[in-house]
Amino acid sequence: MTDRRQFLKTCALASAGLALPAPTLAAATAAAAAPAPTALSTWSIIGPKEGFSPLVGTLASMLEFTRTLVLRSARDLTMAQLDHLSDAKANSIGALLLHLSAAESFYQANTFDNRKWGDFPPDLEKRLGDAMSLGDRGRKSIKGHELQFYVDQLNESRARTLAGLKQRDDAWLLGVDDSFVWGPTNNYCKWFHVAEHESNHNGQIKYLKQRLPGAKGDGE
Amino acid sequence: MTDRRQFLKTCALASAGLALPAPTLAAATAAAAAPAPTALSTWSIIGPKEGFSPLVGTLASMLEFTRTLVLRSARDLTMAQLDHLSDAKANSIGALLLHLSAAESFYQANTFDNRKWGDFPPDLEKRLGDAMSLGDRGRKSIKGHELQFYVDQLNESRARTLAGLKQRDDAWLLGVDDSFVWGPTNNYCKWFHVAEHESNHNGQIKYLKQRLPGAKGDGE
Repeated sequence: MTDRRQFLKTCALASAGLALPAPTLAAATAAAAAPAPTALSTWSIIGPKEGFSPLVGTLASMLEFTRTLVLRSARDLTMAQLDHLSDAKANSIGALLLHLSAAESFYQANTFDNRKWGDFPPDLEKRLGDAMSLGDRGRKSIKGHELQFYVDQLNESRARTLAGLKQRDDAWLLGVDDSFVWGPTNNYCKWFHVAEHESNHNGQIKYLKQRLPGAKGDGE
Repeated sequence: MTDRRQFLKTCALASAGLALPAPTLAAATAAAAAPAPTALSTWSIIGPKEGFSPLVGTLASMLEFTRTLVLRSARDLTMAQLDHLSDAKANSIGALLLHLSAAESFYQANTFDNRKWGDFPPDLEKRLGDAMSLGDRGRKSIKGHELQFYVDQLNESRARTLAGLKQRDDAWLLGVDDSFVWGPTNNYCKWFHVAEHESNHNGQIKYLKQRLPGAKGDGE
């Protein structure tokens, strides 16, 4: 029996344990990295979401979690702050935000449209290649936008992701791409990477934000 | 029916779809954020792992994925590089590595031992409080170690995590802590956070690494 078959079979067996009460923990103060409570009441529940296959919905909840943290970091930044370059090597916070939208779009092309990595439609390369590449290309072309521009781009690519995920099932999510550059890689891994990639750059966004001209507070 | 019950029920139903062939994608080149292929042949498969309940094993594979990226970033750094402070606000790369081990240990205390966040055993606070806090406390006390020290600390806390997770089931993972500081938060979310928190600081580690004295290359 394959791992995947075993996985879903065990999944079914595990349902027998659900009458057990969930452990109740109490927590008085925040973790160092903990965000403040938010209006999104379900943001800190990782699990199935209505309208998605169960594992796919679980992935969607992860994408929501890390996106929530990114948007919290970017909140209230001005155009000058979004354009600021901390040194000659740095990417602006605006470029990092657009990079997240670009990465998500390239993974859509790879996993939804079965495009080989590096063999993407020219219009996608043209539209988002600078943001995907960052560095000199990003520094040259990504500037002069208000925060809402980046939020709109992020929302637009996320809407396409969620629409694509809704049409796919858990077997697709666990499906393995044997020829991916990382070695055998399943769609769950590629999309988990999209989520944790937002955290990776959110760490940089927070670092840069605390060093913007006039910023106060200790480093992250 | 609760979401959790629905989740596992749907999980069972989904097994019917498993006879479908997994989509085969081809990929020629790496994503911007893509690591090089690794000897860990399963590192880029997110899914169940032998010895774990299926969803718990899926989480364990996420922890392995982000940890692999962190260790790759830290590889070959010298003590001087691990201790380097890029500015007065900065954390050293060494302190960030120990912070990851500390965060994991505090989440063990919270989720395995049911300790309230902020009400931890004094020996844990004493041993890892500086690493958890970072900032001045970390800058003062975390220095003078070779990379192996940090790797050992990371391995030690990870071994305790995996041992704890092996003893727990999927119902536990989905169990909700209604009094957590983020609002209702399940164990899946807390441990997903431990994984993506590594990515958050890995983004910073890569940023700092590219700005070490003598470092070459463009920024991240």
